[in-house]
Amino acid sequence: MRYSKLFGKTEKKISADMVSASHKLLYKGGYIRESTAGRYYILPLGWRVFNKIIDIVRDEMNRAGAQEMVAPLLHPLELWKETNRTNEAGFELMQVKDRRGAEFALGGTAEEMFVDLIRKYQLSYKDLPLNLYQFSTKFRDELRARGGLLRVREFIMKDAYSFDIDEESFKKEYMKMWETYTRIFNRLGLETIAVESDNGYIGGEYCHEFVVESDAGESKFFVNDDKSYAAHEDVAIFRKDVKNADEEIKDMTEIEAVRGTTMEDGLKLHNLPIWQQLKDVMYVNEKGKFILALIRGDYDVNEVKLIHLTHSIELRHATPEEIRNDLTSEPGFISPVGIKAKLKEGVNLVIVSDDSLRTVKNMYGGSNKLNFDRLDMNIDRDYQVDVEGDIALTKEGYDCTKGGKLYARKGIEVGNIFQLGYHYTNLMKGAVYTDKDGKRKPYYMGCYGIGIGRTMATIVEKYHTENGIKWPETVAPFDTEIVILNMKDEARVAEAEKAYADMLGKGINVLLDDRNKSAGEKLMDADLIGANNVLKI
Amino acid sequence: MRYSKLFGKTEKKISADMVSASHKLLYKGGYIRESTAGRYYILPLGWRVFNKIIDIVRDEMNRAGAQEMVAPLLHPLELWKETNRTNEAGFELMQVKDRRGAEFALGGTAEEMFVDLIRKYQLSYKDLPLNLYQFSTKFRDELRARGGLLRVREFIMKDAYSFDIDEESFKKEYMKMWETYTRIFNRLGLETIAVESDNGYIGGEYCHEFVVESDAGESKFFVNDDKSYAAHEDVAIFRKDVKNADEEIKDMTEIEAVRGTTMEDGLKLHNLPIWQQLKDVMYVNEKGKFILALIRGDYDVNEVKLIHLTHSIELRHATPEEIRNDLTSEPGFISPVGIKAKLKEGVNLVIVSDDSLRTVKNMYGGSNKLNFDRLDMNIDRDYQVDVEGDIALTKEGYDCTKGGKLYARKGIEVGNIFQLGYHYTNLMKGAVYTDKDGKRKPYYMGCYGIGIGRTMATIVEKYHTENGIKWPETVAPFDTEIVILNMKDEARVAEAEKAYADMLGKGINVLLDDRNKSAGEKLMDADLIGANNVLKI
Repeated sequence: MRYSKLFGKTEKKISADMVSASHKLLYKGGYIRESTAGRYYILPLGWRVFNKIIDIVRDEMNRAGAQEMVAPLLHPLELWKETNRTNEAGFELMQVKDRRGAEFALGGTAEEMFVDLIRKYQLSYKDLPLNLYQFSTKFRDELRARGGLLRVREFIMKDAYSFDIDEESFKKEYMKMWETYTRIFNRLGLETIAVESDNGYIGGEYCHEFVVESDAGESKFFVNDDKSYAAHEDVAIFRKDVKNADEEIKDMTEIEAVRGTTMEDGLKLHNLPIWQQLKDVMYVNEKGKFILALIRGDYDVNEVKLIHLTHSIELRHATPEEIRNDLTSEPGFISPVGIKAKLKEGVNLVIVSDDSLRTVKNMYGGSNKLNFDRLDMNIDRDYQVDVEGDIALTKEGYDCTKGGKLYARKGIEVGNIFQLGYHYTNLMKGAVYTDKDGKRKPYYMGCYGIGIGRTMATIVEKYHTENGIKWPETVAPFDTEIVILNMKDEARVAEAEKAYADMLGKGINVLLDDRNKSAGEKLMDADLIGANNVLKI
Repeated sequence: MRYSKLFGKTEKKISADMVSASHKLLYKGGYIRESTAGRYYILPLGWRVFNKIIDIVRDEMNRAGAQEMVAPLLHPLELWKETNRTNEAGFELMQVKDRRGAEFALGGTAEEMFVDLIRKYQLSYKDLPLNLYQFSTKFRDELRARGGLLRVREFIMKDAYSFDIDEESFKKEYMKMWETYTRIFNRLGLETIAVESDNGYIGGEYCHEFVVESDAGESKFFVNDDKSYAAHEDVAIFRKDVKNADEEIKDMTEIEAVRGTTMEDGLKLHNLPIWQQLKDVMYVNEKGKFILALIRGDYDVNEVKLIHLTHSIELRHATPEEIRNDLTSEPGFISPVGIKAKLKEGVNLVIVSDDSLRTVKNMYGGSNKLNFDRLDMNIDRDYQVDVEGDIALTKEGYDCTKGGKLYARKGIEVGNIFQLGYHYTNLMKGAVYTDKDGKRKPYYMGCYGIGIGRTMATIVEKYHTENGIKWPETVAPFDTEIVILNMKDEARVAEAEKAYADMLGKGINVLLDDRNKSAGEKLMDADLIGANNVLKI
């Protein structure tokens, strides 16, 4: 390739919204150009890198026995209705009607499409396991795009869907994909950590993000000292220490408590440990149901965990008016004790407690009345809860369940693997195979994604200097760049042209900088775009 | 690949709507599967063929100096408004809004996107010519899908856009693409004819369809004896023979003519040649403007030509009521003579004549009154026309302007090349380069498309028997298929497995039929999917 003909020039100025190194350098190097916010042209230089990444992903997916194909990008909306995802994923799902009135979702992920495909066939256990994948454009109606290719609204993704006879067989596929992903990212020069994650609206029970540690990332997670534990902040757990669980249970009392409404106000007034204070947080979910989250005073509520435990889609804090009018309680003085007896008619309240309430006895807190507190409240004896589980927010320094302390980390999610189980095949009728015993059984599923553009940007985040990108050889757009230092020196130009022709003849992927620019500018551009082997002639 | 693991089984039954050979065989062979009408899954077998086609297209485009990149699939709608295409292409353009209210077109072709990209740069004449291309999904809101992959609503297209300094330079690019296309289709085993075509809503002045002759095609075109002329029926021209042009002009007269309303009725009554009869066809365009098309009685009106000549988007025939009420004329008795004086107030009429009216003198026809005809009408003397040009419909047997007769042919359009000229760069502000003289000038453009799926289907139309597909080697999904005839014969199975492993080791793309099926079934499937080299073990 002649640089004089290459479309996409290097740029010197950047705009103020370009914060991350990958955004700046990919823009300045002429790799990408924005169309509208979050939608990018991948320019010829960028597309060369894309294709190298795609080739490596394809190679490893094929080696793992997955089969490449392609599904339509417009998904019949009725499929998304079968799985109730028009609601759950509705916020970032784009929809379109054709002129005959048929409704479609612009695919943001393709579980329904692959389940719909496979149920058109009568497969048997002998056809399984089966793993189908595609490289295709995905659409997400993200509220905010940021960081160049790090968070976009339209992107090319490798998405794979596996179908197994049962969980045992699936787990082998899951581990195979885990290893495949590790190998893919290694070949791309990226060290990844498989981080336990929240499955969001994809469904299923467990999943892992493949994260590259980076301050430019949005994924916040915790690891322990030896990295035997890694989990996203949304799902991370920790060892809850036992406080006064052996203490004798005392009689509950109510006392006047003229105080403010914060935890600190309660602490000052009663002069008792913060962990002994009962923290009551009142939420309302998308159906208007009230949810009272109870937790030990030194912990905070993890709303993602609470959403899952209560099968909600989204939560908001209750307003002071709602707390007073609907619950007949008082902001800052909420208590589980007796609250259900005071509800206004028609009001629905679920009480959820963190399991840390089992580590503390004789707790203190509000009484559903202004300026009155209760002392020595105890779960079960004084109040009952509807749901009990882990709703605690993990923080740096807490003890890891697998030993050592927990450390907060940031990173970029370049891939993910999901256990889907029977989630989709139970919801979509006819997604069954014939087992050895002749019975029709639903497939046990998994899915596996890698964002190609985000992977490219992540490579840049890891491999760059202030002056430019330092591509790993496996993804560099060119093997070699020949820079003609002085275009007026005909002998050198001829020499460079000969070297260029020779390399092309040998099948070397070479860029010849034959532009009418100074040697200084050319070498700066070579640094910027990340030509690793520069031959100066 | 082991056939036992290959997803997408061969099918025996087909549905009644599968008419074309490619639809039947690609479905039966497990190459494609329909999602909804006109939207297909390309299964692993089909995707192998797709990729081989894509590789050949890419190879030849690169050889021609074009550069691959990728543009977003959602196009900002304002770009389509700049070129007025939300109206002109509106009927098959799908639109979507995101949750922030931004409007997008689902790309059906990408002229605006590439012009918008290039105007973000300050290019000079030294950067030109430039040809950018992509493989990407296109969306068309077709009213009717048919023939499997022959006419679909969503498809992968190679689309290229060229930018030149002027028409002279562009013509070289156009010819280069012409040759590139011929080479591409040759490598794919397809003989193409470059057929002059209508540019539809793409714009520009001339374009060519690359057509493979086939009864399964929708492209109707004419060729002359030596194929030095080939043109789509919409644009085909012919040599109009001169009739009585030397005859002396006679005085126009009006006579009673109690007759029906057809041309034949006029012929019978007057007993004069059909070519001497004046044919008057009244249309209404999308803006409500009346258009009177005049042509020699032995010819018919080509509505596509009429649309272009009158800058209309669509035409319909005027109703008898409109002819009587708005034009104060009479169906079957319309005449250009004096019609403009009789229009109802506010009615707008354009008179368009075919140039064949110069080949005939002393014509006969209606008088805008029931049962009265005029004899010896002559253009210019008796009536004036607003637009004169070629609006004649070409028919088989007519004389070709390049010699010989014209023959009607049918074929499949697998690619097209368009001169766009300044159409887009005049409409989209800032699409300019800096010329040698330092002046900013608009780019001179062309565009070039190849539908990958339709190309695959066309190959099947040309290469098949009743029993299956006969792929050209360049696109066959596998180089070789090994069929294990008897799965119970362990020695033969071991032999086949060894041959399979050997071939894989040599990098041969081989399919091993290790399914538990009879030899007969396996060989039938091998015929069906089109394995050219079958090794029976």
